[in-house]
Amino acid sequence: MSSTYGENLKLSIFGQSHGAGIGMTLDGIPAGLPVDTEKLQIFLNRRAPGQNDWSTPRREEDRPEFLAGILDGYTCGAPIAAVIHNKNTRSGDYRNLLDCPRPGHADYTANIKYGGFQDAAGGGHFSGRLTAPLCIAGGLCKQWLEEMGICIGAHILAIGECGDTYFDPIDPELESIHSDFPVLDPEAGAAMRDCIAQVRSAGDSVGGIIECAVTGLPAGIGEPMFGGVESRIAQIVYGIPAVKGVEFGIGFDCACLPGSQSNDDFTILDGKIVTQTNNAGGIQGGITNGMPEIFTAAIKATPSISCPQKSVSLSRMEEQTLEIKGRHDPCIVPRAVPVMEAAAAIAIYDMILGNTQTNRRKN
Amino acid sequence: MSSTYGENLKLSIFGQSHGAGIGMTLDGIPAGLPVDTEKLQIFLNRRAPGQNDWSTPRREEDRPEFLAGILDGYTCGAPIAAVIHNKNTRSGDYRNLLDCPRPGHADYTANIKYGGFQDAAGGGHFSGRLTAPLCIAGGLCKQWLEEMGICIGAHILAIGECGDTYFDPIDPELESIHSDFPVLDPEAGAAMRDCIAQVRSAGDSVGGIIECAVTGLPAGIGEPMFGGVESRIAQIVYGIPAVKGVEFGIGFDCACLPGSQSNDDFTILDGKIVTQTNNAGGIQGGITNGMPEIFTAAIKATPSISCPQKSVSLSRMEEQTLEIKGRHDPCIVPRAVPVMEAAAAIAIYDMILGNTQTNRRKN
Amino acid sequence: MSSTYGENLKLSIFGQSHGAGIGMTLDGIPAGLPVDTEKLQIFLNRRAPGQNDWSTPRREEDRPEFLAGILDGYTCGAPIAAVIHNKNTRSGDYRNLLDCPRPGHADYTANIKYGGFQDAAGGGHFSGRLTAPLCIAGGLCKQWLEEMGICIGAHILAIGECGDTYFDPIDPELESIHSDFPVLDPEAGAAMRDCIAQVRSAGDSVGGIIECAVTGLPAGIGEPMFGGVESRIAQIVYGIPAVKGVEFGIGFDCACLPGSQSNDDFTILDGKIVTQTNNAGGIQGGITNGMPEIFTAAIKATPSISCPQKSVSLSRMEEQTLEIKGRHDPCIVPRAVPVMEAAAAIAIYDMILGNTQTNRRKN
Amino acid sequence: MSSTYGENLKLSIFGQSHGAGIGMTLDGIPAGLPVDTEKLQIFLNRRAPGQNDWSTPRREEDRPEFLAGILDGYTCGAPIAAVIHNKNTRSGDYRNLLDCPRPGHADYTANIKYGGFQDAAGGGHFSGRLTAPLCIAGGLCKQWLEEMGICIGAHILAIGECGDTYFDPIDPELESIHSDFPVLDPEAGAAMRDCIAQVRSAGDSVGGIIECAVTGLPAGIGEPMFGGVESRIAQIVYGIPAVKGVEFGIGFDCACLPGSQSNDDFTILDGKIVTQTNNAGGIQGGITNGMPEIFTAAIKATPSISCPQKSVSLSRMEEQTLEIKGRHDPCIVPRAVPVMEAAAAIAIYDMILGNTQTNRRKN
Repeated sequence: MSSTYGENLKLSIFGQSHGAGIGMTLDGIPAGLPVDTEKLQIFLNRRAPGQNDWSTPRREEDRPEFLAGILDGYTCGAPIAAVIHNKNTRSGDYRNLLDCPRPGHADYTANIKYGGFQDAAGGGHFSGRLTAPLCIAGGLCKQWLEEMGICIGAHILAIGECGDTYFDPIDPELESIHSDFPVLDPEAGAAMRDCIAQVRSAGDSVGGIIECAVTGLPAGIGEPMFGGVESRIAQIVYGIPAVKGVEFGIGFDCACLPGSQSNDDFTILDGKIVTQTNNAGGIQGGITNGMPEIFTAAIKATPSISCPQKSVSLSRMEEQTLEIKGRHDPCIVPRAVPVMEAAAAIAIYDMILGNTQTNRRKN
Repeated sequence: MSSTYGENLKLSIFGQSHGAGIGMTLDGIPAGLPVDTEKLQIFLNRRAPGQNDWSTPRREEDRPEFLAGILDGYTCGAPIAAVIHNKNTRSGDYRNLLDCPRPGHADYTANIKYGGFQDAAGGGHFSGRLTAPLCIAGGLCKQWLEEMGICIGAHILAIGECGDTYFDPIDPELESIHSDFPVLDPEAGAAMRDCIAQVRSAGDSVGGIIECAVTGLPAGIGEPMFGGVESRIAQIVYGIPAVKGVEFGIGFDCACLPGSQSNDDFTILDGKIVTQTNNAGGIQGGITNGMPEIFTAAIKATPSISCPQKSVSLSRMEEQTLEIKGRHDPCIVPRAVPVMEAAAAIAIYDMILGNTQTNRRKN
Repeated sequence: MSSTYGENLKLSIFGQSHGAGIGMTLDGIPAGLPVDTEKLQIFLNRRAPGQNDWSTPRREEDRPEFLAGILDGYTCGAPIAAVIHNKNTRSGDYRNLLDCPRPGHADYTANIKYGGFQDAAGGGHFSGRLTAPLCIAGGLCKQWLEEMGICIGAHILAIGECGDTYFDPIDPELESIHSDFPVLDPEAGAAMRDCIAQVRSAGDSVGGIIECAVTGLPAGIGEPMFGGVESRIAQIVYGIPAVKGVEFGIGFDCACLPGSQSNDDFTILDGKIVTQTNNAGGIQGGITNGMPEIFTAAIKATPSISCPQKSVSLSRMEEQTLEIKGRHDPCIVPRAVPVMEAAAAIAIYDMILGNTQTNRRKN
Repeated sequence: MSSTYGENLKLSIFGQSHGAGIGMTLDGIPAGLPVDTEKLQIFLNRRAPGQNDWSTPRREEDRPEFLAGILDGYTCGAPIAAVIHNKNTRSGDYRNLLDCPRPGHADYTANIKYGGFQDAAGGGHFSGRLTAPLCIAGGLCKQWLEEMGICIGAHILAIGECGDTYFDPIDPELESIHSDFPVLDPEAGAAMRDCIAQVRSAGDSVGGIIECAVTGLPAGIGEPMFGGVESRIAQIVYGIPAVKGVEFGIGFDCACLPGSQSNDDFTILDGKIVTQTNNAGGIQGGITNGMPEIFTAAIKATPSISCPQKSVSLSRMEEQTLEIKGRHDPCIVPRAVPVMEAAAAIAIYDMILGNTQTNRRKN
């Protein structure tokens, strides 16, 4: 198992940053689900670079070609396959990466694992570019979830020291945030952009936190223990490059809260059982309880920076100063927002497909 | 997939809190690995309750009977199966849980998912008691990893507001911490015990954070994307009841650190390539880099508390005040420390079994 | 993957012939399914040895203890675990098997794979005794399938040169065959018993063929390619010791039939689409077509025979004559009949759980 | 699980007969394995149609484009992805298949499963054309196995009533058979071609049997029970369209052989332990014993025939006579020979990757 995900659906992601193409196959999807490719393109564009002043100006067009699995606007039951052909492939720029690994990247670990045979150009298979096929699969799952009334939205919770307000955990507002710099508080957004501008001019980079919410999830989704919603979502979210932390509900803050405050008391609202608070992020025992499902993920600063860094020459086994040329995103957090939504959509749709919930009721 | 874990080894955990027995099967383990059952028992005892003043006095003896897979002190290649027979099984105490779910527990979600057919007594399959078979599997994997020079240790990083010092991320000290209240700083430990005593007398409970480190891991373990070390460890750690956050290396703090500080620069020490810092927790691109692997997990406060809580009667669909009787752990964090080690051991041993690292070197 | 089966349910089988216990865990089963343990015992007894004159007189009682997963006669959603404790365990009889492998058994291959650490007594994990836990899982699945109107039955099609008549492929008669020597034609049965008596008195053994039919299967079960009904059934049936051939419908006879005769023409019967013949055994493109699903499996002669055989001493690397003492089944085919039903039941129930059939209809 | 195979490698096959492209992703392959694309093309050409007088004259060029996973002639550790672009795609010819299913094809079952949304043209995802990407994956695995000294070869054992001689089970001759009509006995081959010519002129079709052998396999490959060599090979071989029977060694003939004859006695040859016969096809207890691994598979007659057949109109629910136009292979057996080799290569390479054989030896 490596670039493959799913218990019921089977997602397989392929490609290297500067290879001939990147793409995905998505197997196990029922026939007859509508596919809106224009809506998908709008979703993919949220991840695409070069659209604004806080990301790299290298402009790629992430327009997938569907090779299989879709017919006349509907899934046909066969595996879905899509490819994004790379326009500017292999270049000589990256050759010395094989000898001098960039700090914070996977250059060194790939070299150890693949014995020098890895495709080092642009980070190869470890490139953030591989989140594009993840967004194809996730964008499709998101459409199918919306058909069931399940909505997924995310926003930038923090960039550097600048923080946005949190979602209302009982009733998160997902509609307003689908901009290309999604925040709940515009002032916080302005401060974040300033922060990004500063690190950019310093040749440095900055990380951040993304908060993601899912509404409309019925209770009963998820399996016990290792098949729980947290397990399934964390597995896929940690598959996104640069993620170093994932928490659900109040997450790490739960350490400080006594049980009397962290337990979500039950009540009845409009004839429906709900919880009064949502510290658990909508999950108890790994299973959804009908409240919004909420998680946050920490994204480290882009490792590609202009400042000189210390590395080593693998062939000569001596220290070496490394300067990375080219222009890179000073902050990938805004572009990672739709990726987080995509990952959540895939995990949740997979769990719904394999749901073992009984349809009986004990008297 | 639910109570099953592993890509190469196959762990299956079974049992309900008050059922006839709890246990596990562990398939895919090579023959000829030594099994030290006494050492395993010492490990299991670290998790067992009633051993001290900060946990529940209900004393269980978690002594596994091995039904299969071990012969004359060695694995024999057949699946390993172990069972812990429950002494005090089914009682009438928990019957009303079927109608009035406890806040913070899985009672409600289990009821929705299993339609009233679930074993509600003591939380059934969702009970923390199921971490005992996890520790059997993990204790075995830990022994086999130690044979390879890989050591795993964890300590209580925080309980409530009281925090311990962090592991030295370059050279974590794992030897000194194997007490039944493992901390690095004894004074912090004393403060934590005071905190637990306070919440206990208030009929309340408290959560905490555990930090876990793995030393001796060779570089090159882990697969790209969804098979990365973070993905594999997070999946199993989130299978432990009450875990609400998992982070690697500096985790969520990475959001505030510029790339120039968060990147781990390479250097050469004693003829070996190492990083000068270890913000990444020993993982780049999902693959180990030879530095210590470090992660932390947040544990919420025990949901079982004596104070009255608000719940609902499912049959009458009306609000109801719930008082939970019996004695419960005011804080499960100390007992969760070996569980965290067990989870890490299983995940890492699984990845080592399935390692696709090449044994060739490109010229 | 080894002693684990299932895409949606997860079956894990453990135990060695003379170990402390054999058993299984079965995960992923919905809650609320009725479990009739008496009916299960009757099914298990069909497999048990020593019940009659054509099998070994060693009498074991295969009475499973359910440790988990069943409550008040219904599945409770937690993994089901059952164990059969061995009465007469480890004995000295089998020690020399480690040095002198029995022809036709897995002694030699186990020795190579497990380096001498394997449990050789009675064949260890490779013993036919391990079909008992398979029958526990299969007996349960069979009950749940019957609740849906899906019936599974098998009979002895051949023993040595003596052949029974085939099932009517359009309307197989499953009711009459549940004896302990299930055949369709009593005269064929008598000839088969004679054949067994002869090989027994010669200290030899004999193999046979089992035909299995499944009725009531709705159309649309099974997935394309490697998830087809044939693939899924063949995988589990080949997990039964001694099976050397599996075919579906007319199987190998299809080689001789021209397309004009082997194609199953469609027609309409009682307002339902059916095929006029059933050469395909109810499966087209790996997916059920609503006709009875029919397959046959070849079982080789019991390798344990009294006649002297040629083997080698592994330690001395020299040829050696081997005489196997003790009494063994001269023919395991009758006892393998319920095992075949069990295997089919597990595979089919697994496919039904994970069925991706759409519930929409294109206009 | 459907069009996905593998426990350790992960093969995912996509495409529909007349879609934009067919292809595969192959994940989990170590880096540094050489890839000879010319040798692969020669292998693929053995499967390609229109090369001779016994197959359909529709000429396709199955030349895969590798999108990912291969760099400078070696695997690079990233998933391998390849696509064959279809030249003559979607046509109007197949539209009525949606209403009038062809006997012997998957048209009807696909219609039930996919609710009319399936891609019916040319059989869609169920087309034999999907064996081309299977051969890409298999052709690669075959190369990597050959590097280890493991060879795979297959020949036509029978077409209709005309039979070839069997492989010598102790020492199968694999070198001479790589023609486009591979048989061991040239006279048998001539009779088979006559048989094909006859059914072709009658507008009919004919099936056959393929025998496949693997030499050079070390002992100890394969896992117990459901992970045995037979289970793993049968699962993938039944994924090949038209296969209706799979047997190992003497297969169904084992029913008639007494144990004294079917057991393969051990002896020592050139200081190596071997068996004197090879009735088991090189497998004991699911694990290789170092002898050649041999299996046969039955292929039914091509269901596409020119003669009128009986079918039904799904929309009008009435019987209908169907005449299939166009030119089709009167016998696909010759083209299925390399497909069988490909399937075996994938299964065996997968088992070698995940081999749990111990590297220790008990004293």
